[in-house]
Amino acid sequence: MARVVVDVMPKPEILDPQGKAVTGALQRLGFDGLTVRQGKRFEIEVDGDVTEDRLEEIRKAADTLLANTVIESFTVREETVADQAANR
Amino acid sequence: MARVVVDVMPKPEILDPQGKAVTGALQRLGFDGLTVRQGKRFEIEVDGDVTEDRLEEIRKAADTLLANTVIESFTVREETVADQAANR
Repeated sequence: MARVVVDVMPKPEILDPQGKAVTGALQRLGFDGLTVRQGKRFEIEVDGDVTEDRLEEIRKAADTLLANTVIESFTVREETVADQAANR
Repeated sequence: MARVVVDVMPKPEILDPQGKAVTGALQRLGFDGLTVRQGKRFEIEVDGDVTEDRLEEIRKAADTLLANTVIESFTVREETVADQAANR
């Protein structure tokens, strides 16, 4: 089964209250010098092969459903077996 | 400025209601054969260099604050300049 990963992040010019809260909490816990932005990660298991058409379809899905493109940007990429192994 | 990415995903054996909702919505919109699990992505800007010590500190931060390790697993990795370029 092939896997595609869609990362959705708040655009740089958009305030990110969740990220701000996490940044503050880390500082209070003694983790200094870290600035956090928080987004979403979607792992999509694709039936069959990941063709360019299939990726285009997933980009469309991300654009309609997964990201609010007014305030968020997204990236779509196929995750290779090596990536999956590295993420164990 | 160096960047570290922390990906937090629900563990495989844990139900993922958000992912289930997205999977259902995609199907209703006509995107077939896609199964989604939803997690979180944290982009952390690190002051100074990303040393092994710094990474260990971030792993500890992820373990205490970013992930609920009862139900979620996380990965920590440095994002190279090439990764950042690919994500434009």
